[in-house]
Amino acid sequence: MIEKVNTIIKEIEEKIIGYRRDFHRYAESGWTEFRTASLVARRLTDLGYEVMIGKEVMKDEDRMGLPDEESLEKNWQRAKEQGGDIHFLDSVKNGFTGVVSILKNGEGPIIGLRFDMDALDIQEDLTDNHRPYHKGFASVNGNVMHACGHDGHTATGLGIAEILMTIKNEIKGTVKLIFQPAEEGVMGAKSMVTAGVVDDIDFLLGHHVMSGWKLGEIIPGMGNYAATQKFDVTFTGKPAHAGGSPEKGNNAMLSASTAVLNLYAIPRHSQGYTRINVGKLNAGTGRNVICSEAHLLIETRGETTELNDYMYEKALTVLKASAKMYDCKLEIKEMGGAQNANSDIELSNRIEKVANKISGFTFFPSRKGGGSEDITYMMKRVQDNGGLAANVGIGADLNGISINDKNRDAVLGAHTSVFDFDEKAITVAIRLLTLIVFDIMKE
Amino acid sequence: MIEKVNTIIKEIEEKIIGYRRDFHRYAESGWTEFRTASLVARRLTDLGYEVMIGKEVMKDEDRMGLPDEESLEKNWQRAKEQGGDIHFLDSVKNGFTGVVSILKNGEGPIIGLRFDMDALDIQEDLTDNHRPYHKGFASVNGNVMHACGHDGHTATGLGIAEILMTIKNEIKGTVKLIFQPAEEGVMGAKSMVTAGVVDDIDFLLGHHVMSGWKLGEIIPGMGNYAATQKFDVTFTGKPAHAGGSPEKGNNAMLSASTAVLNLYAIPRHSQGYTRINVGKLNAGTGRNVICSEAHLLIETRGETTELNDYMYEKALTVLKASAKMYDCKLEIKEMGGAQNANSDIELSNRIEKVANKISGFTFFPSRKGGGSEDITYMMKRVQDNGGLAANVGIGADLNGISINDKNRDAVLGAHTSVFDFDEKAITVAIRLLTLIVFDIMKE
Amino acid sequence: MIEKVNTIIKEIEEKIIGYRRDFHRYAESGWTEFRTASLVARRLTDLGYEVMIGKEVMKDEDRMGLPDEESLEKNWQRAKEQGGDIHFLDSVKNGFTGVVSILKNGEGPIIGLRFDMDALDIQEDLTDNHRPYHKGFASVNGNVMHACGHDGHTATGLGIAEILMTIKNEIKGTVKLIFQPAEEGVMGAKSMVTAGVVDDIDFLLGHHVMSGWKLGEIIPGMGNYAATQKFDVTFTGKPAHAGGSPEKGNNAMLSASTAVLNLYAIPRHSQGYTRINVGKLNAGTGRNVICSEAHLLIETRGETTELNDYMYEKALTVLKASAKMYDCKLEIKEMGGAQNANSDIELSNRIEKVANKISGFTFFPSRKGGGSEDITYMMKRVQDNGGLAANVGIGADLNGISINDKNRDAVLGAHTSVFDFDEKAITVAIRLLTLIVFDIMKE
Amino acid sequence: MIEKVNTIIKEIEEKIIGYRRDFHRYAESGWTEFRTASLVARRLTDLGYEVMIGKEVMKDEDRMGLPDEESLEKNWQRAKEQGGDIHFLDSVKNGFTGVVSILKNGEGPIIGLRFDMDALDIQEDLTDNHRPYHKGFASVNGNVMHACGHDGHTATGLGIAEILMTIKNEIKGTVKLIFQPAEEGVMGAKSMVTAGVVDDIDFLLGHHVMSGWKLGEIIPGMGNYAATQKFDVTFTGKPAHAGGSPEKGNNAMLSASTAVLNLYAIPRHSQGYTRINVGKLNAGTGRNVICSEAHLLIETRGETTELNDYMYEKALTVLKASAKMYDCKLEIKEMGGAQNANSDIELSNRIEKVANKISGFTFFPSRKGGGSEDITYMMKRVQDNGGLAANVGIGADLNGISINDKNRDAVLGAHTSVFDFDEKAITVAIRLLTLIVFDIMKE
Repeated sequence: MIEKVNTIIKEIEEKIIGYRRDFHRYAESGWTEFRTASLVARRLTDLGYEVMIGKEVMKDEDRMGLPDEESLEKNWQRAKEQGGDIHFLDSVKNGFTGVVSILKNGEGPIIGLRFDMDALDIQEDLTDNHRPYHKGFASVNGNVMHACGHDGHTATGLGIAEILMTIKNEIKGTVKLIFQPAEEGVMGAKSMVTAGVVDDIDFLLGHHVMSGWKLGEIIPGMGNYAATQKFDVTFTGKPAHAGGSPEKGNNAMLSASTAVLNLYAIPRHSQGYTRINVGKLNAGTGRNVICSEAHLLIETRGETTELNDYMYEKALTVLKASAKMYDCKLEIKEMGGAQNANSDIELSNRIEKVANKISGFTFFPSRKGGGSEDITYMMKRVQDNGGLAANVGIGADLNGISINDKNRDAVLGAHTSVFDFDEKAITVAIRLLTLIVFDIMKE
Repeated sequence: MIEKVNTIIKEIEEKIIGYRRDFHRYAESGWTEFRTASLVARRLTDLGYEVMIGKEVMKDEDRMGLPDEESLEKNWQRAKEQGGDIHFLDSVKNGFTGVVSILKNGEGPIIGLRFDMDALDIQEDLTDNHRPYHKGFASVNGNVMHACGHDGHTATGLGIAEILMTIKNEIKGTVKLIFQPAEEGVMGAKSMVTAGVVDDIDFLLGHHVMSGWKLGEIIPGMGNYAATQKFDVTFTGKPAHAGGSPEKGNNAMLSASTAVLNLYAIPRHSQGYTRINVGKLNAGTGRNVICSEAHLLIETRGETTELNDYMYEKALTVLKASAKMYDCKLEIKEMGGAQNANSDIELSNRIEKVANKISGFTFFPSRKGGGSEDITYMMKRVQDNGGLAANVGIGADLNGISINDKNRDAVLGAHTSVFDFDEKAITVAIRLLTLIVFDIMKE
Repeated sequence: MIEKVNTIIKEIEEKIIGYRRDFHRYAESGWTEFRTASLVARRLTDLGYEVMIGKEVMKDEDRMGLPDEESLEKNWQRAKEQGGDIHFLDSVKNGFTGVVSILKNGEGPIIGLRFDMDALDIQEDLTDNHRPYHKGFASVNGNVMHACGHDGHTATGLGIAEILMTIKNEIKGTVKLIFQPAEEGVMGAKSMVTAGVVDDIDFLLGHHVMSGWKLGEIIPGMGNYAATQKFDVTFTGKPAHAGGSPEKGNNAMLSASTAVLNLYAIPRHSQGYTRINVGKLNAGTGRNVICSEAHLLIETRGETTELNDYMYEKALTVLKASAKMYDCKLEIKEMGGAQNANSDIELSNRIEKVANKISGFTFFPSRKGGGSEDITYMMKRVQDNGGLAANVGIGADLNGISINDKNRDAVLGAHTSVFDFDEKAITVAIRLLTLIVFDIMKE
Repeated sequence: MIEKVNTIIKEIEEKIIGYRRDFHRYAESGWTEFRTASLVARRLTDLGYEVMIGKEVMKDEDRMGLPDEESLEKNWQRAKEQGGDIHFLDSVKNGFTGVVSILKNGEGPIIGLRFDMDALDIQEDLTDNHRPYHKGFASVNGNVMHACGHDGHTATGLGIAEILMTIKNEIKGTVKLIFQPAEEGVMGAKSMVTAGVVDDIDFLLGHHVMSGWKLGEIIPGMGNYAATQKFDVTFTGKPAHAGGSPEKGNNAMLSASTAVLNLYAIPRHSQGYTRINVGKLNAGTGRNVICSEAHLLIETRGETTELNDYMYEKALTVLKASAKMYDCKLEIKEMGGAQNANSDIELSNRIEKVANKISGFTFFPSRKGGGSEDITYMMKRVQDNGGLAANVGIGADLNGISINDKNRDAVLGAHTSVFDFDEKAITVAIRLLTLIVFDIMKE
């Protein structure tokens, strides 16, 4: 099977990398992956997949951090102009940019593969030092850039889809290909999970290109992602003339300031690390007006989901009391969230075994601490249902930036204007993930 | 009538001053005027008055700032040992130390005269420089002293009672003599007002000896008393080991600290001056325990009753929110209060006219700003019912302390361990108040 | 002399009103009165005055609330395009828009007359209901409008200049005509005062058209202006990743929040009313970054200059401590300020006497409380030097808005997009002020 | 040697347990171990040791948490009455209650053994259920009790002293026996360390009886003690009448409240756990007085010494700024402190080897997290100088309290009124420690 897969990959490699560059060129950020999602749906359909899209695979009210309607509309129009698939564009309108396709061949395990599609709000480097610009596929959309490799993930998904369709008869069971929007800001996964997309899955696989790792290096099961909650808060009070009748105001800035101090003062927890940050606070209008509105951008984190929940609960208590302190109205809007989750060791070991059969991979254990990933929502759900889940790191180099060994713990260069990776990592990912699927489903 | 009153006064003067010294010697502080009140009731009864006492003239739950039961019991025992009237001691038990007596002669105006009876928690000066000690009537009760002249007020009340009974047939109407406990800390008046004691009164008269004014100087209508509310607050949280499980505590000290900052930050009011003070804060037990209890002593003030109410309402809002911020229980106990009130000009003018007939008094207009007096509760009620009220300042010198003109605005020496006044002020007060009563009731 | 003045006024009236409409049409806000000031200087020069302008009459560093250089440059270019005087435009560049001219005839008192020239950042009403639009002189500069009558004041100044030059030989002494920029936001007067412009003045006169007063009504000496200080504050800390290394940040938002709470908690003052307001607070960049910069817009007020100084001093103490609390750098920029000042009664009486000779004026006493005016800086300086000062209110009606008597205490309609006044108030002001000057200098 | 040691132990066992009961009966808390220390010095002298005591082995100003002079004097008198050694009592006056004795036999390693002597401020259980009471050696000093076993440690020290003197010629090198005061509250070790007591030591040994462990169980090297700093803070402001002139006060309660909020808000640290607690806050005098003094009891903790230092530094910054905020004076008094330290594995292994030779001990690895011990100051110093250190846990049962396996991680019953332990643990400790000394010095 390794040979067969290798052969197909060789055939489709150029096309797949073309896909990646196309997605890169027309980068779309979270909830506006209209062109990307519509083209994914189109290609899956053309390969013979049945496609579920938009509201079929997403719960409306769980889409966290959704942009305003004007921005959704403007970007949808752009997608149309930039060659989005006319048919599927209708289905993804208003930020319903999730796509799922299913391949079924008899009874057998149900495997889910998740690919994220969104770019970041970053202006791409437009100098010849930057390979994507030099090669002519830098983002044409201002202030939007694939600076985290999700363009590669999406292309990988399409490559796997093509191979699996080819070897369809040699596997038993069901494969679900899940193309998720809005991973950045950990906004998108929840709405697909609550829509039930992963409820029947026995094995869940995700992957991420690692710009800090060399090509050939593999982290078979990443984990220790921090649980996090991201939310926006508005205190609404009542304005008054600060000189003439200060007593008539309900001072939202005093509510906000009281909240800030007390949020940071939430007790440390004995069971592990916790975090809280008020990253942004905008309050008030004019110098001589009692402030009547204050907006805060907040996030909590926890070493585990429980610790994050502790922080979030305490934060809500503080915010409610701070609002009451000055008779202000309180509005809280969830903007993103992730769980703490770990790859299952059993599945990681299996992945390592499969990888070993292919070629000279080097393996690294799971990284500790640090960032968040919203595939954790999916992993948790699958694990809670008795299934296994793993998120695989695929060494991808970082072209143009020298990496020393000390820093390899960081996804070097990710989220910067000069991010890039070796496109061979795409074929590595296609080969590895396809063979893991085959390993599980051949039984 | 002036002649007649003068004659009686000459006869009773020595006795009345003896009463004053007796009250001074056995000084009793707020709500523990057991001996004083029982002897007042005894003497009024002996004069032929019908006496109402204790629960008949006081509303239980409106007695603010009541001491604990143990302290009430201990002081009641002391009153018994120091010669309180056995019969009436029973009626004043547990802090029901108000006394009212009524003189009625046909139809006519109803006049109320109010006398306060309580001493202060001050250790009296026990040196020969201090006249009361030198003359042998310094307080024998440790840390309790008549340092504000209420002993004189009570004696004055008994003097007036005796004269009025003598001239009873020459006046028409009703006189209510009101002996009030616990004026210091503005704790006592409210309970007599809510018991209805002043509800039927047409003219209310109070008086205060003024140690900063010379004998013969009169303030016919004092006013501009600040409205105030005094209250104690307890936050009750949950203790926890600060090192082992800080997250398990509900930190009452954080509630208290948040409250303190936000109480002082209550907006200034455009309609007049406002004040707030947290005078005392005790919180916590051990260094390594999350604080589970915090006690605060607070007071608000306002130039008017409305402004004080504004401060008190805002303070309650802050306190409630501060409690919720850390899931603490909140308890608030009213400890004292006074209204803003002014003497009616019409009545003040009448007082000035009566005074002018007697002798060469010097008159001073009402003082501005400053302290609080809880006769204001009575004045407000009478004025709200359409009656007139005035509180009269009686110049009384301050023996032993030289007074310069700059400081006469202050009741010099009041509330200090060397306070004293010229006892002739007692006869001045008896004469003036009796003749005002006669002036009103002879019609 | 009244006759003579009346005759001249009749001759120049149309021209002066033309000036006013021209200033209105090309409204310029504080520190950008380039066109206005250059034309004032041109006309004064043409009348035969010696003109001092720009840095000659302004202290650079005391120009509070100066816009940024780009804005100054842009508006200067606009002034050039809109017909500013080429010669004088050079002198007022970069916000040096003050003009002073002197008329001297032998020895005698030195009189200063102050006129303010700036408009407000308000979009003028552009409908036919609004007289200036209907008559074709509404502001052509977007979001800038003479909504407080300073266009009229400037025109009045030019009218007075013309008459005084004509009657020059009949007066003895010196007249200083002071055209001040940036009165709105109380930003401009200080820089002319510290440049010494009013140091030698014996009598200072200012005036303001009062849209809430009827034509013919006069307030001979306004006062009780609140002292105020307006200032911007920046806390600069150090950013850090809120999840990865929160301990590395210096949190400017915590400094700002601590400051806000403690600023509002500055103790109330027993000697009069005080105010403080933090009108605006912007802090932070991204949700997951420890906030490294916070900007606050603050103002203090006081019933007197001393009370305002008390608030400002306390505010500085709080701000410095709040910065240190989180190792932040603190920057404070004064943006405006005014003193508490009162018109001298002696001078007000004289004004009333002069006014009485002219015709049937109605007089109103000084208004209480309320806003601030930065002529107070000049008044204080003159008064401190032993001179007399008065600011005169000139009833001016408010066309198009019905005024009820209750609201006449407010300068009705001022600072709104529909502000207007009866232009006859300009001739009233010219006549009255000229005759007061004559009354003082004829001696 | 084991045999020899066993033999001596059998001879002295009863005497040593007698010592322990004597110390228990006359329990003395931190810095007042006058009787205990003087008797220790007496017995060591009688054994032939040269004794250094008081100021010879303690740095005056590093004695943290010292009681006031009155209390020191009172307890010294008690020690005298209860049979303290007259000669040595003079040397330990005023809280200089440390004792060191030295045994030197030629060149060789220098070993230090540390024993703590202080009791706790706890009222001992005086019922027959409590063995020490039943046996007649419960503490006769009210509210002072050996509830942590230091009486046993001191007795162990005397036992070892006797044996070592006996086998003196069979060992080579120097033994320092260090009897330390005030371990509770982690107050005493620092003053002996800074006096240089452990500067020349190659091997440092401490031990603690473990009431939660069975007799025969041993923890050869305890560690992971939390670093901690305990300190008292006073803000001194200026009082003022809260109604009459609030602006004249410097409000220490506002300083304290601002400090409390910001202390708890000190950023979490990414490198490990940190703690802060304000356990107690007392502020203010009367309700109507601006608070002029506030006292706080604070402690910081950290997983490592560096983390604790971080917390302490930040706390100082917050406290200084809070004082300046209201022009208050700040006083900080260090009341206790401990470092984070671990037993050296090399030494722990050696201890295990020695123990194994003796009999059937069961070994437990070091405990994690939890409390603090100030032997850490000594361990750190020795380790920093290139020496080795270990603190040994000696299973001691807890008579009368049933121990389940889950809770054995806690020193069960310690710091309670019913604490007790099996006195056989004393002979276990003597035997083990003596043989470790021999093992090291015989070489």
